[in-house]
Amino acid sequence: MSNHTVTMEEIVSLCKRRGFIFQSYDLYGGLQGLYDYGPLGTELKKNLKDAWWKDIVYLRNDIEGIDGSNLTHRQALKYSGHEDTFTDPMVDCRDCKFRMRADHIEGKCTQCGSTNLTEARDFNLMLKTHYGPVESDDSIAYLRPETAQSIFANFKNVLDSTARKIPFGIAQIGKAYRNEITPRNFIFRVREFEQMEMEFFVKPGEDDQWHEYWVKERKNWWISQGISPDNLTLEAQTSNDLSHYSKATTDILYKFPHGDEELEGIANRTDYDLGSHTKNQAELNIQANVKENTHSTSKLMVQTQGEKPYVPYVIEPSAGLDRGVLAILCDAYCKEQLEDGKERIVLKIKPSLAPIKVAVIPLAKNNPDIVSIAKDVTKDLQALGLGRIKYEDTGNIGKAYRRHDEIGTPLCITVDFETLENEPQSVTVRHRDTLEQHRVNIADLLMYIVNTMKS
Amino acid sequence: MSNHTVTMEEIVSLCKRRGFIFQSYDLYGGLQGLYDYGPLGTELKKNLKDAWWKDIVYLRNDIEGIDGSNLTHRQALKYSGHEDTFTDPMVDCRDCKFRMRADHIEGKCTQCGSTNLTEARDFNLMLKTHYGPVESDDSIAYLRPETAQSIFANFKNVLDSTARKIPFGIAQIGKAYRNEITPRNFIFRVREFEQMEMEFFVKPGEDDQWHEYWVKERKNWWISQGISPDNLTLEAQTSNDLSHYSKATTDILYKFPHGDEELEGIANRTDYDLGSHTKNQAELNIQANVKENTHSTSKLMVQTQGEKPYVPYVIEPSAGLDRGVLAILCDAYCKEQLEDGKERIVLKIKPSLAPIKVAVIPLAKNNPDIVSIAKDVTKDLQALGLGRIKYEDTGNIGKAYRRHDEIGTPLCITVDFETLENEPQSVTVRHRDTLEQHRVNIADLLMYIVNTMKS
Repeated sequence: MSNHTVTMEEIVSLCKRRGFIFQSYDLYGGLQGLYDYGPLGTELKKNLKDAWWKDIVYLRNDIEGIDGSNLTHRQALKYSGHEDTFTDPMVDCRDCKFRMRADHIEGKCTQCGSTNLTEARDFNLMLKTHYGPVESDDSIAYLRPETAQSIFANFKNVLDSTARKIPFGIAQIGKAYRNEITPRNFIFRVREFEQMEMEFFVKPGEDDQWHEYWVKERKNWWISQGISPDNLTLEAQTSNDLSHYSKATTDILYKFPHGDEELEGIANRTDYDLGSHTKNQAELNIQANVKENTHSTSKLMVQTQGEKPYVPYVIEPSAGLDRGVLAILCDAYCKEQLEDGKERIVLKIKPSLAPIKVAVIPLAKNNPDIVSIAKDVTKDLQALGLGRIKYEDTGNIGKAYRRHDEIGTPLCITVDFETLENEPQSVTVRHRDTLEQHRVNIADLLMYIVNTMKS
Repeated sequence: MSNHTVTMEEIVSLCKRRGFIFQSYDLYGGLQGLYDYGPLGTELKKNLKDAWWKDIVYLRNDIEGIDGSNLTHRQALKYSGHEDTFTDPMVDCRDCKFRMRADHIEGKCTQCGSTNLTEARDFNLMLKTHYGPVESDDSIAYLRPETAQSIFANFKNVLDSTARKIPFGIAQIGKAYRNEITPRNFIFRVREFEQMEMEFFVKPGEDDQWHEYWVKERKNWWISQGISPDNLTLEAQTSNDLSHYSKATTDILYKFPHGDEELEGIANRTDYDLGSHTKNQAELNIQANVKENTHSTSKLMVQTQGEKPYVPYVIEPSAGLDRGVLAILCDAYCKEQLEDGKERIVLKIKPSLAPIKVAVIPLAKNNPDIVSIAKDVTKDLQALGLGRIKYEDTGNIGKAYRRHDEIGTPLCITVDFETLENEPQSVTVRHRDTLEQHRVNIADLLMYIVNTMKS
């Protein structure tokens, strides 16, 4: 169903025009790589989050959820390796003073074309702040560059409070921040974004098979959200591309308008992180002259009866939520030629992800009987708890249909004069994808809607 | 039902022990005023957010939702008045160098007791960072001190994309950050927190009546979430307490263990914010020598047919989500004397807010038939989409009941030997609050659970 030829311009235009996504603080000129979700984008993003949480936390019995702070203790990011190695190479143009990524240019300044560039230097991608009332080196804190560290730091807390046994996972949806040198491609590469990350803790030696398991699971999940399998590719990262913590990473690439790019990465982080935070405990204790060194070094280890304590390995499916939103939008965007020769834009999005589930349209806005029935129908549908149901009384019916096609509303219900005349009362239900219109009795409407939304 | 004598220590202990809330990065000594939500706290917070969003956005027809970035354009916070006036008075101890809030001390250092203190100075509460690859005055950005500014900055975007007319509201749930000099009282006063804010735009002159309307609505909402009305008080702020943007603010106070303190504030922000951002447009245009000054100054105004354009007034119900979680926990926490003389701790939380809806307990963990039925029941309940259903096979049945009382699980279902013997198959359903146990046929179980959860 997907339209592979959608351009980024078409998506950006739809997002701004219909209220999916706006550039943050555009009235002050905006900030590069920073976006706000509007009324429709907020719903789409929320629906995608809820779908992930349901499938990862609620429908399984081996995963717990957490929600950690964005501000992060500097020590955690020192020992995780981010303070030293989470960098991009950067060059400055000596002529126009523009700063850019060294690995994204071809010997010339992307701004002014000069070849008078500095040598490449490492630039740390973490956003830094001072935490507390005193601004000093001791008060440095970072905005987390990945949600994962909140999970590793809480490994023992979760273990102690839930009595979990290996294998099990900890999931989290939340913001992460990277001070990208050159943000680009709309919400694909931005400086503030959301991740849906899960750390699955396994026995060393069982990590390869779990890695394989999660690659399959995650690819299937994106397909279950309506992404066309033709637009997804698996790609194993080469050793050059691997992050400092990874033994092996398989990326799920989506065919975005700007190319096949990462939607989600599934990494085998081994015992790198839990090990680093464990070693650090030892160091801290030595510094503080604490005697019970042995006890602390075992902090992030587990022990099963009859076995030696060990640091678990970790398989990490890490998805970009904003990239997910972008992929869903690109995949659902269709231009169709209608019988009358006109073109329509329609977002063929899965009903569970649609920002608005049903639009209820009174055909005559000045007829009190029609308005009253339309409002009652709206209220009854809202009580179902399916998500957003819109009472739609702006513009004429043709415009309303076009708007709701474009924003992916699966069903439009029209209350018209026939509703008033017929007994039992009925309404017209119009289906977004097929353009079929059915006459449905109001008494049967709720069940009809619930069943359609399930599909 | 609520226990007014619960202490903060009891709440903190429950939260840590059972996995509601942990201090962030406690393995590195923690950061003051920074918390992570554990498996249960994450669910409770999510349920409270979803309840607010449902009642504010889905069940009304006059409110849109947005989700804005945490990083904020410096200019927006300059013109909103935060860069100049969002401050607390601060003093330093000359002896021990400790820094504290001037209005929270009685002439002595809270750390060492010295009276050798500096004069009070203004300290800006916003957390600052540098955005982009160059660290200079031009690259300063802030973490938003309130979610509201994202809403004001998107007023025109929302208006243009939804064709809304005054009165209407824009709602948002998201993080905000304040570099409090002395964070305290667990998750009550912290440096990173979540807000549930809604800006309701009205005609000037109709603001007082809308203010009154929203104060009532919001107080009733907290009661609908299970908070005892006896623990809520309304308090009009005196002119000394009012924020720089407010004409009048009514606080909803909750009787927290540390005193009657603000849970939510409903402010009449007048046209302060939209007006400030509008004037700023004019200034920016003058600086840039843009001619069409008039056009830009009217950017954040609205015009109804036959009327002069005007800047809408704003009524803002602004609730602290973390404070909401704390209030819900305090209000639900009960210690009860049982008939056998033992005490039980029970969290009498509304089923829709409960972190775990149902625990399914196989009475004999080694009986494959019992385990198989318990797993099937778990799976069927999970498919209902009510939230988290836990398959509970740790500890004995008595311990499981105690644990689920303490974390507020409304129902425990036990699969026992009777289940295997009787035809039709039945299970025991135990009710948290009444301790009643009912025998329910598995065939009727789903409907039984759905109906109980609705109450």
